[in-house]
Amino acid sequence: MPPPLQLSDLAGRTPEQPISHFMKLALENPGLISLAAGFVDEASLPSADYREAIDHLLARPQTARAALQYGTTQGHPPLREKPLARLAAADGLTPQAMGLTSDDVVITAGSQQLLYLLAEALLDPGDIVITEAPSYFVYHATLAARGVRVLGVPMDDEGLSTEALEQVLQRIDREGVLGRLKLIYTVDYFQNPSGLTLSRRRRERLMQLVREYSRLNRIIVLEDAAYRELRFEGDDLPSLKSLDTENQYVVYTSTFSKPSAPGIKTGYGILPRDLMAGVLRLKGNHDFGSSNFGQYIIERLLETGAYDRHVVELQAVYREKAHAVLTALAEEFREWPEVRWTHPTGGMYVWLKFPPSIETGPESPLQRACLREGVLYIPGEFCHVRPEDEPLPTSEARLCYGVVALDQIREGVRRLGRAVKPLIRPAQRSSKRAAAV
Amino acid sequence: MPPPLQLSDLAGRTPEQPISHFMKLALENPGLISLAAGFVDEASLPSADYREAIDHLLARPQTARAALQYGTTQGHPPLREKPLARLAAADGLTPQAMGLTSDDVVITAGSQQLLYLLAEALLDPGDIVITEAPSYFVYHATLAARGVRVLGVPMDDEGLSTEALEQVLQRIDREGVLGRLKLIYTVDYFQNPSGLTLSRRRRERLMQLVREYSRLNRIIVLEDAAYRELRFEGDDLPSLKSLDTENQYVVYTSTFSKPSAPGIKTGYGILPRDLMAGVLRLKGNHDFGSSNFGQYIIERLLETGAYDRHVVELQAVYREKAHAVLTALAEEFREWPEVRWTHPTGGMYVWLKFPPSIETGPESPLQRACLREGVLYIPGEFCHVRPEDEPLPTSEARLCYGVVALDQIREGVRRLGRAVKPLIRPAQRSSKRAAAV
Repeated sequence: MPPPLQLSDLAGRTPEQPISHFMKLALENPGLISLAAGFVDEASLPSADYREAIDHLLARPQTARAALQYGTTQGHPPLREKPLARLAAADGLTPQAMGLTSDDVVITAGSQQLLYLLAEALLDPGDIVITEAPSYFVYHATLAARGVRVLGVPMDDEGLSTEALEQVLQRIDREGVLGRLKLIYTVDYFQNPSGLTLSRRRRERLMQLVREYSRLNRIIVLEDAAYRELRFEGDDLPSLKSLDTENQYVVYTSTFSKPSAPGIKTGYGILPRDLMAGVLRLKGNHDFGSSNFGQYIIERLLETGAYDRHVVELQAVYREKAHAVLTALAEEFREWPEVRWTHPTGGMYVWLKFPPSIETGPESPLQRACLREGVLYIPGEFCHVRPEDEPLPTSEARLCYGVVALDQIREGVRRLGRAVKPLIRPAQRSSKRAAAV
Repeated sequence: MPPPLQLSDLAGRTPEQPISHFMKLALENPGLISLAAGFVDEASLPSADYREAIDHLLARPQTARAALQYGTTQGHPPLREKPLARLAAADGLTPQAMGLTSDDVVITAGSQQLLYLLAEALLDPGDIVITEAPSYFVYHATLAARGVRVLGVPMDDEGLSTEALEQVLQRIDREGVLGRLKLIYTVDYFQNPSGLTLSRRRRERLMQLVREYSRLNRIIVLEDAAYRELRFEGDDLPSLKSLDTENQYVVYTSTFSKPSAPGIKTGYGILPRDLMAGVLRLKGNHDFGSSNFGQYIIERLLETGAYDRHVVELQAVYREKAHAVLTALAEEFREWPEVRWTHPTGGMYVWLKFPPSIETGPESPLQRACLREGVLYIPGEFCHVRPEDEPLPTSEARLCYGVVALDQIREGVRRLGRAVKPLIRPAQRSSKRAAAV
């Protein structure tokens, strides 16, 4: 017998994704209605567009050879132009006015790889990262692996609270560790998991605070705009990137996965210039460039307009699904005002808050009841980094209407209602109802 | 002005890829014949096969939706069966006899990502890695980034010298740091950059040594078989993996890029079971699964046999190109026995050795003369980690016949000859010729 294998410190710090267990549950129980998985709507996946784009590429020897050959680490140059033009258009600006060129864009294996590369490029053990609370749980594992201290900032209907952020900044300044604050992470459009969006005034305030507190070390804001294109109600809001007029503070990242097809696994980042070189050195070691074929396909879809036509269709799909979830929740919990939820105007997520007595964690009575009833949600505690001075919130849940079929939504929410209602204590009910009256 | 950006220790340790400069040269000088780029033959890229496979997938709603949706971190299960079956068949065994199942396979973004993940999973700063000298230079940057000590073991016509390996093992044992030796890296079929293959008896000896020296820590052998399927002469040799009968020591990695299409960026690893969990946790953070669409395409090509038919065609292409390079070198340097080179029986690389007075590095007189003549090679020193107790070899070069057109090979080698011959000193010539007579 050889000695047991010794893994690296990094591997030792890298936790199991808590969601793995749920994906397994869903696979093993095909009768379950999954309001858990963050997968996308399937009926609307643009397979005909893909077929046409790929036929076009592969029927021509020159593009076929270029697309099937190796590409470059930074990504296909014509594709790198596109996110820039789209970002500027969404913000009512030009790339020139934003001081950006395609040299500031890197194409990555989904936006997830950009998140990973940025953590690698910036973070050493003991550094500090600020996230929204709740926040995108997959990234928490990446941050844990880097051995950093993660501080959560609460959210309300306007997204991350800049008042609370300022308090956190003051606190770490007082503690003498402001120089260790490297990164503020925000999913500022229809956040995963809460569905909340950062308001316009808070965008401005956030950028003010970042400039003000970048005294010892430049604080990078990671603006994860993965869901921005999936707005189905209201007007777009300016990106944080558009407020970073000298391309110094904000990394803007998004993906072609959610608005087009996750299977193509192609995203991008727009980075401050002095960060790009380091990120490219790292990416050269990861894969020396993301799938070139995928990049050519996306470029073609963007070029022909098929991509944008599809996004409009998809917005309608999610508008309808969100409406179905919100209507079903309102019906199901009409008499239960102690159950509250967010009202997203884009993206794929609704965040639920139950009374504090209702635990939502794995193995909780609610989770077990939901499995019996045949519905899955994501426990809210997966989306929180354990706070340093408060208890972990344990009565929240993420619902995702991405992949669930429209005609299953009412039934899924009904099952959730059947599971949760018997667990809400009568005493609590009557007092709450009295308060509501 | 904000303070300058502070990058992580990891980013600080991650070097620029030396080859970037050469890729830029090639782009800027379209008249150059590149015997440098490790790109693949373009005329033979199987675009019709891809078109057919993709049409099949996208024409059917069920496969279209599955392929365009997210997949799993470990990879598409039917695809994971395939490398296993191929490995076992190549080694004259069955997966059962090798103690392997598809749970032991992970699909990655090319084999490069597997190399990166393995370095992350195993290596801490101060650990020791043994590589062949010369070795695959892209991996050197990954190893440098992990802060490890890299020891090179020289090669001859039978590949890595196991006698020299034993001496290195004895030395680090004497130094008291055997417990820090985590990894031995070998490209054991038609190595990049040398074109050399590890002989049968050395395969057995290597595995004996690994078992013998795994006293304090299990030493992992990373068998990079990226070129194995590109054999165009002679019989296949058993993999090191086939000699690792209990799936404990050898990580076998290969790619669908070189035998099929690099643009699809899909490779795989077959790992000891206690290493797989750590690698999957890391990969979950990188990208939670490689391009699902690419995986479905490759699976279809393997399933229909199109993949294997193409590999046979490609072997013929590289056989002809290798023959052209070797014939041209023999003609060009017939009167110059002081110039020597390897004779690959597969893959895409030939390794050249010039007399010690001929420096091949960037900015060397030879490199400048080659640019004037219009031909590019990779300086051999890029492929060496600086030895601890000997000078860095500086008179070697890698030639790649992957992407260069067949009818350009003779001219490319002629240009190389015109550049190098004036630099070989007459004195050296006459003494060498005397010795040769």
